[in-house]
Amino acid sequence: MDAAGFRELWGDFEPIGRSPEGGYLRYSWTETDLECRNWFRAQAEKRNLEVETDRNGNLYAWWGDRHAGDAVLTGSHFDSVPHGGAYDGPLGIVSAFLAVDELRASGAKRRHPIGIVAFSEEEGGRFGVPCVGTRLMTGALDADRARDLTDSDGVTLAEAMDSLNADPSVLGPDPERLRQIGVFVELHIEQGRALDAEDAPVGVATAIWPHGRWRFTFTGEANHAGTTRLPDRSDPMLTAAFMILAARKEARLAGGVATVGRIESDPGAANVIAGKVHAWLDARAPDEAVLNAILEGIESKVSERAGRDGTQVGSRAESETPVVEFDAALRDRIASLLGGVPVLPTGAGHDAGVVSAHVPTAMLFVRNRTGISHAPSETADDEDCAAGVDALAAVLRELAC
Amino acid sequence: MDAAGFRELWGDFEPIGRSPEGGYLRYSWTETDLECRNWFRAQAEKRNLEVETDRNGNLYAWWGDRHAGDAVLTGSHFDSVPHGGAYDGPLGIVSAFLAVDELRASGAKRRHPIGIVAFSEEEGGRFGVPCVGTRLMTGALDADRARDLTDSDGVTLAEAMDSLNADPSVLGPDPERLRQIGVFVELHIEQGRALDAEDAPVGVATAIWPHGRWRFTFTGEANHAGTTRLPDRSDPMLTAAFMILAARKEARLAGGVATVGRIESDPGAANVIAGKVHAWLDARAPDEAVLNAILEGIESKVSERAGRDGTQVGSRAESETPVVEFDAALRDRIASLLGGVPVLPTGAGHDAGVVSAHVPTAMLFVRNRTGISHAPSETADDEDCAAGVDALAAVLRELAC
Repeated sequence: MDAAGFRELWGDFEPIGRSPEGGYLRYSWTETDLECRNWFRAQAEKRNLEVETDRNGNLYAWWGDRHAGDAVLTGSHFDSVPHGGAYDGPLGIVSAFLAVDELRASGAKRRHPIGIVAFSEEEGGRFGVPCVGTRLMTGALDADRARDLTDSDGVTLAEAMDSLNADPSVLGPDPERLRQIGVFVELHIEQGRALDAEDAPVGVATAIWPHGRWRFTFTGEANHAGTTRLPDRSDPMLTAAFMILAARKEARLAGGVATVGRIESDPGAANVIAGKVHAWLDARAPDEAVLNAILEGIESKVSERAGRDGTQVGSRAESETPVVEFDAALRDRIASLLGGVPVLPTGAGHDAGVVSAHVPTAMLFVRNRTGISHAPSETADDEDCAAGVDALAAVLRELAC
Repeated sequence: MDAAGFRELWGDFEPIGRSPEGGYLRYSWTETDLECRNWFRAQAEKRNLEVETDRNGNLYAWWGDRHAGDAVLTGSHFDSVPHGGAYDGPLGIVSAFLAVDELRASGAKRRHPIGIVAFSEEEGGRFGVPCVGTRLMTGALDADRARDLTDSDGVTLAEAMDSLNADPSVLGPDPERLRQIGVFVELHIEQGRALDAEDAPVGVATAIWPHGRWRFTFTGEANHAGTTRLPDRSDPMLTAAFMILAARKEARLAGGVATVGRIESDPGAANVIAGKVHAWLDARAPDEAVLNAILEGIESKVSERAGRDGTQVGSRAESETPVVEFDAALRDRIASLLGGVPVLPTGAGHDAGVVSAHVPTAMLFVRNRTGISHAPSETADDEDCAAGVDALAAVLRELAC
């Protein structure tokens, strides 16, 4: 495939969900999500692929009858983080359609059904919990909990699904479907610069770092910012600020990463000492012992500081994902098929990580020259994306033909 | 006046704008504001007081013809900070109606017109800028700038006024009206515990500390929270956290107060390093030299830290209010009239501070036993509020009869 071939289909999809203020707002169960789904349906119909949506809102296009079993599934997700990049997710879906085209054009004989999938709500950008579609399917997320998830306007996931005429009452585990999938391959833009350093357009994943998201709540006493003497204050903003700095330091010392990207103060007025502050900690590390050490270091230092600030601090895990080692045999087979491309770990969670607990799974990465991810300037060269399509087509031929 | 007499009228007003989640949401130019204004009109009509609204949305009830000049004006504001207390503002308006009742019942002969006023948008709780009604009237705030102020939903002040059929095109200085006012007295709940310490239900203000509000903007680079190596990051949340802690420290060392009560991160997702963080600094001090020292201390330390974080930092004053010394002769006359009540400074801004640059002005404070202010649990005893009404009635008699 050449760069122009990739650009043609990519350019058709790319405008969907672009925000005038920069980046993309592709949130699940919105009008933009519906646009993405309609685009997917139209592409599938053009190719005579059968379209279906499973009980958890994941969308499929099938070449062959999935009930035949040992299906080869490939795809990714449409949804973005707030003002995220164009490629994170959609590149895997667009590349899947192009790889199927390539396979068909080559006259390859298909032995197993091939499915293209768009998993629902991978980023957690709207409802705060990542990989909702795959975690529901695999039973890793309780259906009642999922239905009750709320977005920042207080709309529940169930209400959001209802608004697009999807039925939230059928959410839940889907073991029969999982049994029909023989292997899953997710192609994704790289979210760092490892491939750039190795001068390679495509790589294969070894593992996903263990990671988690914790919501810290700091509680003090709301009061007048002008008239309350400093010694009379219980200002939770101070404890939150300390936590932000402590998280960075603990991660640096331990060799992981820790980030506070979201913070909210209540009541949130400039002339009122906050009564409550919520801050979300995202932490990741090469293994679980290091991740736990980072979290414990933060909690013990913050708890000591809260004592000095006269505030209370609590934390609750919103997600905790153990290390994911992708199927080693599959990974080696793919790396060798692609002529010895680089193999690399990633700090990012993916649907592939969730699915891999049930189905042999692999990930392909496409080079990201700046490493920018989850931001408007995220980008990949058309040439590299075309190389990604070729690699995915080769993998599908190897696995399905 | 006894406690029950105060409670009767107070209890009639108190439910307006109460939030089910605690405290009050009395924002200007909303349905709740309209309810407050309708309540004011009904009270004025009951008492045969003439009601008018000036070009800046300030609402008046007149006993006597204001054009006679040398009017004695008393009152305060209805609007609250988000989830603020019941008393801050409305106590001065309810007490004004009760004081006029008391004066009339006593058969006092009125020599000057007496006006009760509800100034518009004092807290800045909706549009971010405090004392909009009085600052427009006195020319301290430009009408174009006022019209363009936006709330958190992006609604401008002009649009909000329009929605309640008020005309934003006539906003602006009102020197003729200012000339007609001979003296202004604002009664307000105390926002600290000085009167409690002196065991006095009522006090008189000496001065308002100089204070200001600065919006700090920290700019870095949005990126993936899991895959971006720590040395590759420009995380503005770190610089913002440092500023929060530095502000407290600088204020403590200099003998003022400094608070960050509002913070916003962009894009504000848990798994994205922020690209931008806004934090609002509220700082106040006994005099302007101290206030400047605090601000300069914060800015120099934060700028150094930004260098280490690879971020940019900018700050813009959203309001800066010099020290206000209330009219000393008026203050002494009132303190002596009330039998030598305590005189005290305050760290809080008030419409009285704005008006005092043009008209001799005084403030009465009513005891607040906990000192809690700008929060749901703000409260005053009915007995103390009744004593406040008596004091205000005595002041009006002294000044207008």
